Formats: sequence, C-alpha cells, structure tokens
Amino acid sequence: MTQNTANQPNPQAPRVTVGGVTRELPTVRVGSVGRVPLVEFIGDSEFTKAAAGAMLPLIPPGTEVLLTVVTNALPLAHELSDRSGLPYVTVRKKRRTYMQDPLIQNVPSMTLGVSETLWLDGPHAARLRGKQVAIVQDVIASGGTAQALARLVERAGGTLTGYVAAFKQGDTTLPVAYLQELPTSV
Amino acid sequence: MTQNTANQPNPQAPRVTVGGVTRELPTVRVGSVGRVPLVEFIGDSEFTKAAAGAMLPLIPPGTEVLLTVVTNALPLAHELSDRSGLPYVTVRKKRRTYMQDPLIQNVPSMTLGVSETLWLDGPHAARLRGKQVAIVQDVIASGGTAQALARLVERAGGTLTGYVAAFKQGDTTLPVAYLQELPTSV
Repeated sequence: MTQNTANQPNPQAPRVTVGGVTRELPTVRVGSVGRVPLVEFIGDSEFTKAAAGAMLPLIPPGTEVLLTVVTNALPLAHELSDRSGLPYVTVRKKRRTYMQDPLIQNVPSMTLGVSETLWLDGPHAARLRGKQVAIVQDVIASGGTAQALARLVERAGGTLTGYVAAFKQGDTTLPVAYLQELPTSV
Repeated sequence: MTQNTANQPNPQAPRVTVGGVTRELPTVRVGSVGRVPLVEFIGDSEFTKAAAGAMLPLIPPGTEVLLTVVTNALPLAHELSDRSGLPYVTVRKKRRTYMQDPLIQNVPSMTLGVSETLWLDGPHAARLRGKQVAIVQDVIASGGTAQALARLVERAGGTLTGYVAAFKQGDTTLPVAYLQELPTSV
C-alpha cells in the first residue's frame, strides 16, 4: 500500500533494493537530459525504514549529532535518529518567523545559476557546538547542498565526521558514504 | 539528547505530556500577542514517536489513507503511517518541477490577508480516489489549512473521514480529534 506510484510506469525505470525492500523508481522528463530517476521517501514509510536500517553502519564512528535539511530527507533523518539514538538537527530552506539569530548560508547552484538559501535557527545551531556532526541526505548529486551544510557545521562550532546519503546520483567529488548509485538519466 | 531546546527557557512555558513523554514547549514572541508556545516534532524523534503512538486510536474507523502537508507534520505522518499500516500522501507548499497535473488549492489566511498555495502532485492525488481519507496535522489552529486539505480530498475523489492532530491551538470549529489543547499565548 505504501508503494511509490508517482509518475508513469516506464520499462526502463531503474529498480533499487535497500534493506531488502525493492522499488521501481519513477522517472521524470527534465529538459533535454532525458528521464531522471526520482527517489521519494516521503509517503513511503516502508522504504524509508529499510533505507535507514541499511544506512546505520554508514554513520561515521564518533558521530554525536546528525544534520539534515528539509524536505525530502526528513522522514529518513527521523528514522536514522531513532535507530542510532543520535539527535538530529534540521536546516530549513525558508526563514521561519520564530527563528532567533539564524545562521544563513547560500547554496550555489551549478545548473541554474540561481542560489538557494539555508537557514539554521540559532538554538539549533547551538546544539552543534563542540559536537562531532555527520551530514545526512536522501540523495547527494552535485554536492552543493552537502557543502553548504558542512559550512554550517563549521560556522556553528561543530566538527564534520562525514557525509551519509541513501543514494549518490551524479559526479560529486565529496567523500560520500551511500547505499547505491543512481543513474542521472535513463 | 533529543530534548527540544529551541528558544529561551521560560518559567511560564507550558509543559505537554503525550504518550508518556513530557516536553517543556519553547515560546516565541509574536507581535503584540505575547509569547506563543511552539511545537517542534522535527528534530525530536522520541517526542514524535510518543505522539504518533498516542494518536493511533484517534484515526477514524474505516480510514484507508492519511493525508498530510509539509513540513512540520512530516516525521509524525511517517510514524503514524508505519504504526497504522496506512499509506500516507503529502501535500507540498511549493510546486516541484517533477509534478504532473497537480491539484492546486489556496489556503486563505485569517491573520495576514495573504494566502498560501498547496500543491498535490497528480499521481499522488490518484492515490486518494475512491478512498476514505483522514487528514493528519501536528497542530490545528484556525483550521484554514485543514479545510484546504479537505477540499483537496474532495477534488481528488476521496471521502473525508476526519481531522486528526497532535495539538489543537486556537478556536477552529472543525471537529478535530486531538491529544491536547495548547494555549495560543502565555
């Protein structure tokens, strides 16, 4: 019942298996690139749990806090926090009215020339201070967001232990620990 | 370690206990209203799990699908889906590039005179068709978002079974099943 049914069936759609759970990924047409496989953990609790379980051993030793970013990785970070016993901190992509002295960090986009802005609320930034922090994402592609998160760890006074993602999809040069590589187009 | 530490300690901060887990809620100053208690499930997996467990009996009988909206309710909806065995569908607040024939629904704001727009991707809307659907939120205040979600259920061809929230915080006239009422100011 929780199977991912987004978008049209495609005979060339890649299949992924994580933690014993298999999904045929939907693909979406992106410009002239062709069809790009899309991972959706939101709306699929079975797949989310399986990925979190498989990602547990990828968390670098000594990690004390997980850092993630809204929105797609949120259920995954929740599960990983629950299973690892490590707290997680979430960076937002919009300023919230309640934020106090947030850290603000731009993500340079490699493809569109526009930049995205990350917001880390001050009291949450304080939870990273003096801590060993691992960055957790659903998919790491160019690595631009991951690098902006790493900069936030540093600015908050934490120490980065590493990058953990369910999937790598692209040519980042960051040392990412991931479960499976996805094609950038099919 | 997962205790909610956002914002300053406040001697008047309300405490809530759900599913045996107690949190002192941070409060934020909002205009001339005073301080408003703030619930944050994001970043607190222990509190999220406790609330989801306590909310299970609130899901109306016959419900086949849960419908929620980003962002704050997302870990809660994931947990509730996992524990109930019911799939969940998530409405977005921004158009995503991959969406196909999304349903678009305005949320009239009662306070600011500006409206927010909800986006339900077509393939996800199809998962509501002919189904009994319960709306799940972290907090229901005015009920404006809840009503917009109900309209989306109807437009997608589903039937609404009811509204479920962890907290009610305000004067909505909707028949919401909730765990606890929060003050709108302290």
